[in-house]
Amino acid sequence: MKPRTIAVVLLSLFGAAAAWAQSGPTPVREDFKPSTLNQPGQEYPQVNSQRYARFRVVAPQAQSVIVSLGGREGTPLHKGEDGAWTGTTAVPLDEGFHYYRLSVDGGTFNDPGALNFYGSTRWESGIEVPAGDQDFYALKDVPHGRVEQVLFPSKSTGTVRRAFVYTPPGYDRDVAARYPVLYLQHGWGEDETAWSNQGRAHLIMDNLIAAGKIRPFLIVMTYGMTNDVRIGGLAKFDFNPFRTVLVDELIPYVDAHFRTLPDAAHRAMAGLSMGGMETRWITLKHLDTFSHIGLFSGGSISPADVKATPGFKEKVKLVFVGYGSRELAPPRAGALAGFGGDPRADTEALAQDGIRSVFYVSPDTAHEFQSWRRCLFQFAPLLFRE
Amino acid sequence: MKPRTIAVVLLSLFGAAAAWAQSGPTPVREDFKPSTLNQPGQEYPQVNSQRYARFRVVAPQAQSVIVSLGGREGTPLHKGEDGAWTGTTAVPLDEGFHYYRLSVDGGTFNDPGALNFYGSTRWESGIEVPAGDQDFYALKDVPHGRVEQVLFPSKSTGTVRRAFVYTPPGYDRDVAARYPVLYLQHGWGEDETAWSNQGRAHLIMDNLIAAGKIRPFLIVMTYGMTNDVRIGGLAKFDFNPFRTVLVDELIPYVDAHFRTLPDAAHRAMAGLSMGGMETRWITLKHLDTFSHIGLFSGGSISPADVKATPGFKEKVKLVFVGYGSRELAPPRAGALAGFGGDPRADTEALAQDGIRSVFYVSPDTAHEFQSWRRCLFQFAPLLFRE
Repeated sequence: MKPRTIAVVLLSLFGAAAAWAQSGPTPVREDFKPSTLNQPGQEYPQVNSQRYARFRVVAPQAQSVIVSLGGREGTPLHKGEDGAWTGTTAVPLDEGFHYYRLSVDGGTFNDPGALNFYGSTRWESGIEVPAGDQDFYALKDVPHGRVEQVLFPSKSTGTVRRAFVYTPPGYDRDVAARYPVLYLQHGWGEDETAWSNQGRAHLIMDNLIAAGKIRPFLIVMTYGMTNDVRIGGLAKFDFNPFRTVLVDELIPYVDAHFRTLPDAAHRAMAGLSMGGMETRWITLKHLDTFSHIGLFSGGSISPADVKATPGFKEKVKLVFVGYGSRELAPPRAGALAGFGGDPRADTEALAQDGIRSVFYVSPDTAHEFQSWRRCLFQFAPLLFRE
Repeated sequence: MKPRTIAVVLLSLFGAAAAWAQSGPTPVREDFKPSTLNQPGQEYPQVNSQRYARFRVVAPQAQSVIVSLGGREGTPLHKGEDGAWTGTTAVPLDEGFHYYRLSVDGGTFNDPGALNFYGSTRWESGIEVPAGDQDFYALKDVPHGRVEQVLFPSKSTGTVRRAFVYTPPGYDRDVAARYPVLYLQHGWGEDETAWSNQGRAHLIMDNLIAAGKIRPFLIVMTYGMTNDVRIGGLAKFDFNPFRTVLVDELIPYVDAHFRTLPDAAHRAMAGLSMGGMETRWITLKHLDTFSHIGLFSGGSISPADVKATPGFKEKVKLVFVGYGSRELAPPRAGALAGFGGDPRADTEALAQDGIRSVFYVSPDTAHEFQSWRRCLFQFAPLLFRE
């Protein structure tokens, strides 16, 4: 695929990330509750049982306050007599996590009511729409693993770099046990905080482990250097600097400082969106390092890729490809071909060729974190089971 | 001390946190550089070599943009022809970290250029003024410990609670080694993220350990529940719920899940501002749990306290009391008496009574994090040395 094609595809997918279901007037139920991602003590933003969001922003002398969420033109707020600007999305939002921001008199600010999350190369406001399946990423009274911030030296970049390592419950107890490792990448505009803050990867793991549904493993999350790629600048993007950091620096550091099973059979890589593209590109070059591959809204592996990669069928234990259903609906579906072919057809072709491959579709979600939380939830039980 | 007195004292100290050195016109040098706490790629805010700060905020249709930092009335910004509002503080700032916020047309927002830090019960903008002694909290190419997020069960509050645990470099290597522990509390309006994000406690430790200046120990940071205390509401504040979480729930959890030396001789507690008041109140009731006490801008222990606490002289191995120099300057100094007496006189009296006690003054800083970074830097080498 040519870099220019990638840029067009990515723009299409980012466009698909807008989070509405359908338009048209609906009676709005007045059962709004504060979003669970609000700052402590903040009543707004709120979400109702129909998944509408309501905002309230105090700015008495402002001329205009617009929320960039809930429709192509955003949600304009209206000023009340108390100086507060309020408004409700014109349409319901999809389930799960959404980024948003405010435009206040033409300037871009965050909602002082909401917590912030790193996306679009800035800390954005976040709102959570309760989902029917939210139990799998809920904070529950089960044994919890840790998310450990490590600072590792990187000679290739001349910096000290940060990674977060999820260690499962019990990791501290049995000092002889060793674990497989999943290297898990964020998307463009995000960083190494995304899979914990937006994705709740640690809670997904804790809950899966408590339910006995997976073999416990570590997850390593670091910055994929994707933000050097500005929209339109993909033609110059080179995955090699990140490949060096990951393969030559971070993996040896993790294997030296954590009780890992340091072989390809017990090492996976996955990523979302741009992180999926990195995963595809790096794993195909390092099948002696990784044996399990997860692409979440980030392309697929085609039969041609398999043919072009010596040893693929012997070395690769799992190919998992997942998407949000809204990404696959027309007219978006055609754009996905640019990621290496039609992802469902690719993945099914691999399965027919005897490769363990799984295609997953997240119901009623777009190019957003609810799709990727579900991808991880589906992917994790398939890992390291041989 | 009566609760009403405490409230008055706290209000005085928060007033002292405004961060300017002196007023009067000074030629401003045009050597401004982006603050090290800016969001990735953001050029503003900036700081020059004289410690003036300059801001730039885009809000083309706004009527008024004011930065609440750098003078009692804040720093009003002025709109340029490009629609961006700019302005420079009227006076130099103190060295170190400062919280700030924007008032945009009467609404409170954060600066989209700066990273956010939890203080005043909200995520605030932060700016860093380079300090002459910044080397002690710099990110350097030395072995780094980890900051581990743990989620621990709390029966008394019916919640799963969060703590961060700093483990020193080498903790993962020698699985037989056991370590002392410092329980370190944030101030009012802050939370368990403050000592890492604003305080850089982990980097202070890494650097001290690399220099061979301290005995390595763990630091445990959790939310001190201080934000239930709104200004003026102190009369109702009760430290007991937090005492239960800390002493009955968190400490047993840490001793069960980390390789600690689980006795009073190897356990310290310290805190800043309201966290210092918690430290004083809890340690005096639990001298079989803690033997080292650190109060950073948060009161002192008087000879009367010692007399009223059986076993104090035998059990307490260190009393450390620190303040920023601006907190001690008239007219502020008198207010400190409300924290249990004049802190310097108190601490010196303890020393004369044969108790190992240290009084530290951070030069040219106020009730702000630079004072507390320095307090930790001075306190850590004194711990667990017997």
